[in-house]
Amino acid sequence: MITFVHFEVKTENYQDMNILDGRTLAVDIRRELAEAVVEIKENGGKIPHLAAVLVGEDPASQVYVRNKVRSCEKIGFKSTLIRKTADVTEDQLMAIVAELNEDDDIDGFIVQLPLPDHIDEKRVTLAIRPEKDVDGFHPVNFGRMAQGLPAYIPATPNGILEMIKRYHIDTAGKEVVVVGRSNIVGMPMGILLAQKAYPGNATVTICHSRTADLSEHTRRADIIVAAIGRPEFITADMVKEGVVVIDVGINRVDDPSAERGYRLVGDVDYNDVAAKASWITPVPGGVGQLTVVSLLMNTLKASRKEIYS
Amino acid sequence: MITFVHFEVKTENYQDMNILDGRTLAVDIRRELAEAVVEIKENGGKIPHLAAVLVGEDPASQVYVRNKVRSCEKIGFKSTLIRKTADVTEDQLMAIVAELNEDDDIDGFIVQLPLPDHIDEKRVTLAIRPEKDVDGFHPVNFGRMAQGLPAYIPATPNGILEMIKRYHIDTAGKEVVVVGRSNIVGMPMGILLAQKAYPGNATVTICHSRTADLSEHTRRADIIVAAIGRPEFITADMVKEGVVVIDVGINRVDDPSAERGYRLVGDVDYNDVAAKASWITPVPGGVGQLTVVSLLMNTLKASRKEIYS
Repeated sequence: MITFVHFEVKTENYQDMNILDGRTLAVDIRRELAEAVVEIKENGGKIPHLAAVLVGEDPASQVYVRNKVRSCEKIGFKSTLIRKTADVTEDQLMAIVAELNEDDDIDGFIVQLPLPDHIDEKRVTLAIRPEKDVDGFHPVNFGRMAQGLPAYIPATPNGILEMIKRYHIDTAGKEVVVVGRSNIVGMPMGILLAQKAYPGNATVTICHSRTADLSEHTRRADIIVAAIGRPEFITADMVKEGVVVIDVGINRVDDPSAERGYRLVGDVDYNDVAAKASWITPVPGGVGQLTVVSLLMNTLKASRKEIYS
Repeated sequence: MITFVHFEVKTENYQDMNILDGRTLAVDIRRELAEAVVEIKENGGKIPHLAAVLVGEDPASQVYVRNKVRSCEKIGFKSTLIRKTADVTEDQLMAIVAELNEDDDIDGFIVQLPLPDHIDEKRVTLAIRPEKDVDGFHPVNFGRMAQGLPAYIPATPNGILEMIKRYHIDTAGKEVVVVGRSNIVGMPMGILLAQKAYPGNATVTICHSRTADLSEHTRRADIIVAAIGRPEFITADMVKEGVVVIDVGINRVDDPSAERGYRLVGDVDYNDVAAKASWITPVPGGVGQLTVVSLLMNTLKASRKEIYS
């Protein structure tokens, strides 16, 4: 068993700032992963191998998958990219999944979503062997996570947990308000932070579009996780002094002064809220930086059979 | 496809009371299930068949399993009881599970917990085919439930949902406070009531032993689900006027005046809280009445392949 040393963020560098710096964290974690690969090689072990399946020409999906493949290469993981045009049939895709399930050299793989309309995404997701489901989307992994068993945790929650740990953010007994209840962010974050663990042991409130008075909740929160997809929705009057803000939103807003005509903002009105917060994630440069490294961390776990032994 | 008619509780009978009457509900549901069996027989369909595995001599487990088997008989389900002495090996038990998994006549089965110390409960639970896991303990069912997919929901949360539905308790936009975070009650209740569904769409707060100020939460709650296992822990000063109280606790407290030397109380100080509540479950006679019928409802769903088709 190779020990995976967690280099800690040197908090003294940040003590005069209140930024949860996803970019620096991502660099640190990538370096650790690269070092883990060197160690594996020295010990004659099997190099972690991630495969990605990309269907069609969706520009965002192409960027995401390219990032994932490149990130593998940079840290020394093996990677396999399987590209299919949008006219691939569901059965053909299922056959690819079956092949990846059986291939002993592939430790983990992802099927980039969304898939074309004629393909049943749920059927494809359910076909991935949980042992190789490094996206953590299969119900087995979701259920194991929710039951407190070892599991692949989806990329964004996984990244947030890592950030909380490395910045030593205290969560026990804290009031956490999660805004948003999606299967890939809000719901798993709420479950994880309520569990008997660190990060966790928090009193968690899950808010969403049907919440009657959101401000009432956010104003009493020690920690806010904003995952609603509405630009700059959480404003300074909605938070208390000293709050920790994890902003998961990545929204485009028109900005004629910007080169591309838009800029990216989070779900939190950053400048005003930052003035009150003890810690806050910027957008970009916050949580979003950790999604790909989360996937890589899961792939390393898969190759080490840490979740399913 | 046989239609399963839900007889509604006649709320006019209850309008002067504020009791969520689990006993009456259980009678109603058992009658509906018996009628469903009659209909199945008339149509020449397959009679639902539940199997239960009981290991050892634990008195409580014997009572529970006996109740489950008798309940099957009373409503016309087939039942199979497999009893093994406490010295059964894990491999022997795994072989029984494998057999039940393969037996096409068995629609669903349970392995009564706790198991003797020399047997790995988790391993046994994971070996049950999710399609037959009518207890809803397998991570696949837990994950599907949490992701909003069709799933077997564990008995107690399933019973509570049924109670909320049949009493037409409004949950959308309400403040729900769940006290307790167990895998079989607190956590699934929190997840279910936050989901985009009815019952659901509530703003849910999950409290537990690490919550800093429990009263602050319970006092703002429209609906409290108490599942902590501490007798009469929720007192009248902790709730607001008009609250709906679902009391999951079943605790023994010494009572020399009682025939057996003890009486059963919930996690809620019933008499005082009832005076403020718009609806409340008594103990006994509340939620506890619905656990066995929940299992029977899941077995009917299994025999109809409603969850996994």
